[in-house]
Amino acid sequence: MRPDARNVRVVTSIGAGPIGGGWTAFFLARGFKVRAYLHHLDEEAAFRSVLDTAWPCLEDLGLAEGASLDNLTVTDDLEAAVAGTEFVQESAPERLEIKQELYQKLGEMVPGGVVIASSTSGLPMSDIQARCATPERTVVGHPFNPPYLLPLVEVVGGASTGKEALDWAMEFYRIAGKEPLLLKKEIPGFIATRLQEALWREALHMVANGEASPEDIDRALRFGPAPRMAIQGQCMAFHVACGKGGMSTNLDQFGPALKLPWTRLKAPELTKELRDAMVEGCNAMAGDRHFEDMAAERDRRIVAVIKAARGEDT
Amino acid sequence: MRPDARNVRVVTSIGAGPIGGGWTAFFLARGFKVRAYLHHLDEEAAFRSVLDTAWPCLEDLGLAEGASLDNLTVTDDLEAAVAGTEFVQESAPERLEIKQELYQKLGEMVPGGVVIASSTSGLPMSDIQARCATPERTVVGHPFNPPYLLPLVEVVGGASTGKEALDWAMEFYRIAGKEPLLLKKEIPGFIATRLQEALWREALHMVANGEASPEDIDRALRFGPAPRMAIQGQCMAFHVACGKGGMSTNLDQFGPALKLPWTRLKAPELTKELRDAMVEGCNAMAGDRHFEDMAAERDRRIVAVIKAARGEDT
Repeated sequence: MRPDARNVRVVTSIGAGPIGGGWTAFFLARGFKVRAYLHHLDEEAAFRSVLDTAWPCLEDLGLAEGASLDNLTVTDDLEAAVAGTEFVQESAPERLEIKQELYQKLGEMVPGGVVIASSTSGLPMSDIQARCATPERTVVGHPFNPPYLLPLVEVVGGASTGKEALDWAMEFYRIAGKEPLLLKKEIPGFIATRLQEALWREALHMVANGEASPEDIDRALRFGPAPRMAIQGQCMAFHVACGKGGMSTNLDQFGPALKLPWTRLKAPELTKELRDAMVEGCNAMAGDRHFEDMAAERDRRIVAVIKAARGEDT
Repeated sequence: MRPDARNVRVVTSIGAGPIGGGWTAFFLARGFKVRAYLHHLDEEAAFRSVLDTAWPCLEDLGLAEGASLDNLTVTDDLEAAVAGTEFVQESAPERLEIKQELYQKLGEMVPGGVVIASSTSGLPMSDIQARCATPERTVVGHPFNPPYLLPLVEVVGGASTGKEALDWAMEFYRIAGKEPLLLKKEIPGFIATRLQEALWREALHMVANGEASPEDIDRALRFGPAPRMAIQGQCMAFHVACGKGGMSTNLDQFGPALKLPWTRLKAPELTKELRDAMVEGCNAMAGDRHFEDMAAERDRRIVAVIKAARGEDT
C-alpha cells in the first residue's frame, strides 16, 4: 500500500556518490529516517564526507523538527535498505544496464505501491523500467547538484508509469521542501539540463573558435545574467525589462534578432502560436502585479545575491 | 588629451532609457559628476524614475565618497553635454543609422582622446564608427540590465579602434567598480548575450514544441542551475563537481553526452585542443585551491543566494 505522502517517515536513498549522499543529507535535514544503501561499505568514508560538507549548510537554512544525523542507517544489504520503506530515491551510476538490473530487483523488493524515483540526469524512465515487474510506481526525480541545496526536482514518468505515482511524487517532494517540476513529455535532458546544455555547448564553441577562454565564459555568467537569473527566470526577466508592454513588446521588437547569429543555435519560427504562448505564460506569472513593483523587488533581491557572491573567487 | 583613468571626475551619459538612466545612476553612486544628455527633455520624467528606482539599491550596496544625486545635470544640448567631459557612455536607441549619425557628431564634439563607449548589445563597433572622424577612441562597453547592479561590461573595439582606448576603458571601468571583460574578437552578441541567447532559443523551441511552458522554463532556471551560476560559472561548476579529476574528468566522462540530443544546439568536436583549453583554463582559475574547499565555499554562498531569493515570486 502506498503511504499518504504527508505521513512519510522512512525513506531509502540508494548510492554513495555526491547525488546519493546529497539526497541523504537533504532527507535527514527534513526530519526523515533515512536508510542509505551503498553498493560496497568501503564507499562509506566518501559518503560520510558528503554529509559532513552538507550538514552545516542545511543547519544554516534551517532543520526540520527532529532532524538529526542519528536518523541514518547505512547498509550494503539492498533488501534490508528497502524493507518497510515509504519512498526510494535511487542515485546509482548512470549506466542503463546497472539501472535496469537494479529496478528488476527493486520492483520485487520494495513494498507494493511505494514510489521509486531515479536521480538520472539523462536516461529515459521508459528504458530504466523495462525489466521492472512493477513499473507503474517508478518515476524520474532529477535533482540539481548540489541536491541538498538546489530546490529543483524534475519529475517525469516512463511509458509504463502510472499517473498516481507522478502525482504522489510531486506531492511528496513539495512537502519535503523541494520545488518539483512535472514535465509534459519525456524529453532527452529534461528542461533544466537542456537549457544549461545549450549554454554549455555555445561556450565550448566559443572556446574552440578562440573567441573566449573558460575564464571569460565564467566571468560573463557570474557578473552578467546569472545573479538576475537566480531571482527571475529568463521569461520574466524579459517581460519585466520591457515595461508595460512586457513579453509582447520583447517579441515584437526583438523577434527579428532571433534570426541574427547571436549563438550557433537556430531559433524556432516565431509563429503566432509561439508568441501567444510566451505572452500568455508571462502574463499569467505576473498576475496583477505591476512591472515597476516587480522590477523593484527584483533589484532588492539582486542586491542580496551580489552581497552573497562577494569575496574571493570560487 | 586623454585624462588619466584614475582621475576621471566628469562623465557624460547619453540616453534616457533604462540603460542610459541606469548608467547615470551607477556613475552618480560611484561619486562622478554626470552630465546626462536626453534627446528630448520630455523624456526627463521617465529618466528620473529610473534613478529613483536605482538609488536605494545603490545606497544599500554602498555609495562612494561624495556620491550624490546632486552631481547630475540634465540637458538636451549635446555639445554642452560633452564639453569638458572625460568619458562618454552612449546608450542611444539600437539602430545603426541613429548611432552612426551620433558618432559622426561625437567624433568632433567630444574633447580629443576622450573615450566614447557604446552600450550597444548587438551592433558591431566597426559599423557604428564608420562615419566617425576619430574612431580610434570609440569602443563597445556593453552592460547587462539592470546596469546599475550587474557588474559585467563587455569591452571590444571595431576595426578602427586603437588598443590604447581599449586599455583605457578596461582600467576606467575597473576603477569605477565594474567587472570589465575584454573580448578577443568582435563577435555578434559578444559573450554573455551569446550564452543567454543559446539558452533563450532552446527555451523558445521547448515552448514551440509543447515540451515546456514559460513558467516551467523560469522555475527550472531559478530553482536549478541559476543560484549556483551566480556563484560559480559553468566551467568551474563542472570542474569542482568532478572532484579531484576536475574538468578533465568531466570531458572524458561526459564528452560522449555532447552527441546526445540534450539541446537543439550541436556541440563542437571535442578535439584534443578544445579539451586542453578547457582543462588548462579551469586549472588556472582554481590555482592551488583544493576542490573540497571550493565546494564548501560555493555551498556557503549558495545558501546566501537561496536566502536572498526567498519570498514571493518576482
